[in-house]
Amino acid sequence: MRKIVKNSPVPLYYQIKQILQEMIDNEELKPNEPIPTERELCEIHGISRMTAREAIMALVNEGVLYRKQGRGTFVSGPKPKYRLTELRGMTEDMERMGHRVETEIVSFERTPATKAIRNIFNLHQDEAVVYRIERLRMVDGEPYALETVWLDADRVPGMTRERLERRSLYDVLRRDYSLQPRSARQTFGPVIMSDYEASLLRVEPASLGLLFHQTTYGESEEAIEYVKSIYRVDRYKFEIFLRA
Amino acid sequence: MRKIVKNSPVPLYYQIKQILQEMIDNEELKPNEPIPTERELCEIHGISRMTAREAIMALVNEGVLYRKQGRGTFVSGPKPKYRLTELRGMTEDMERMGHRVETEIVSFERTPATKAIRNIFNLHQDEAVVYRIERLRMVDGEPYALETVWLDADRVPGMTRERLERRSLYDVLRRDYSLQPRSARQTFGPVIMSDYEASLLRVEPASLGLLFHQTTYGESEEAIEYVKSIYRVDRYKFEIFLRA
Repeated sequence: MRKIVKNSPVPLYYQIKQILQEMIDNEELKPNEPIPTERELCEIHGISRMTAREAIMALVNEGVLYRKQGRGTFVSGPKPKYRLTELRGMTEDMERMGHRVETEIVSFERTPATKAIRNIFNLHQDEAVVYRIERLRMVDGEPYALETVWLDADRVPGMTRERLERRSLYDVLRRDYSLQPRSARQTFGPVIMSDYEASLLRVEPASLGLLFHQTTYGESEEAIEYVKSIYRVDRYKFEIFLRA
Repeated sequence: MRKIVKNSPVPLYYQIKQILQEMIDNEELKPNEPIPTERELCEIHGISRMTAREAIMALVNEGVLYRKQGRGTFVSGPKPKYRLTELRGMTEDMERMGHRVETEIVSFERTPATKAIRNIFNLHQDEAVVYRIERLRMVDGEPYALETVWLDADRVPGMTRERLERRSLYDVLRRDYSLQPRSARQTFGPVIMSDYEASLLRVEPASLGLLFHQTTYGESEEAIEYVKSIYRVDRYKFEIFLRA
């Protein structure tokens, strides 16, 4: 293991972090293998326990390492990548790859639209009504995202909770309401999960996640759904492909 | 203000969070205006200070609210969006919009390539050497991203710190080395900034950020740079456009 430089302007924990990252990059530490303990790092480098912990936590936060309660800290394996360029349900992607996909409807309500939601759907009456549906998305029995979907009630008359329990939302929109998703605009950012979100997604409280806001447009560029989703980031990577 | 439902299965802080979000969506609370204090929320809803704080912190974490030391909590304004689909330096985008863009070289070194970096650049010799360059990107004097760039030293002979201080990296790659960035693959995820990163980016310690890993490809699909960047998320939104 390379040694730290004590009188460098680079903080000690950051040097330790870089040394660990290099060992992983050089496959001296391999996926799912334990890394040196805090105590070992302290002895090797003559640093405090705090400094060792700070270095390890930084790599845990980046998803490079993971911790198992009472077992230690391990190197993360490579994560499957989820490509963000085509507007396809993750459901369809996952099923194509042979996974069992399920959706649990957490809540389903008809509710007055807020001003922000009215703006998205271009609704002018103050008394416009929307469906607000919370869905927990699961692959092979493991939740990966918590979604809140808004739909303009006038465009999906007779929408029911039962319909969405058995079929994919896009299938219902296409076949029952002739609404064809054509394009979408997504913004995203980091989020610390609330206890409610973390418990539904079955991760530690205050886990890091990605928060997406998506507006999906139909054939004549009208908004047909608005979705806010929180994704776990410990199981998939998100990928984008850019062109010059 | 709508009232909470005390015997609902939905946690109290989550109800408060939704009520505040609705008030913002309905423009009852406007950008850069203060929201009700914790004490006021407690009195109106008959909840504990903890519950009020949890609701507010959840919205701060999502970037919906922001706090000013000793001044209170305010509604965030809409953020400019940064579209991720074209491979263009953010520099070029920002300059086109009339902003002053600067780059500060934080560190510049020639160093042995780790195995992971050798794989990216498809280098077979164990003693392959790369440049590792840390750059702080700034718009109008305010840092927005901390980047670490790796370049295969054999393909950019004579690269110097000075060159990158005066010109954009892509300009140097194109004109001095005939390396034409054509496409890129990016993965991204949430991150909690380390003290070192937060202090360079001039945000609070442990602020949330987005971590991007990018491999940029040239004309014959070869990797010409590898970049790891941490972006602040309090000033810009990232946007993707998806097509069916």
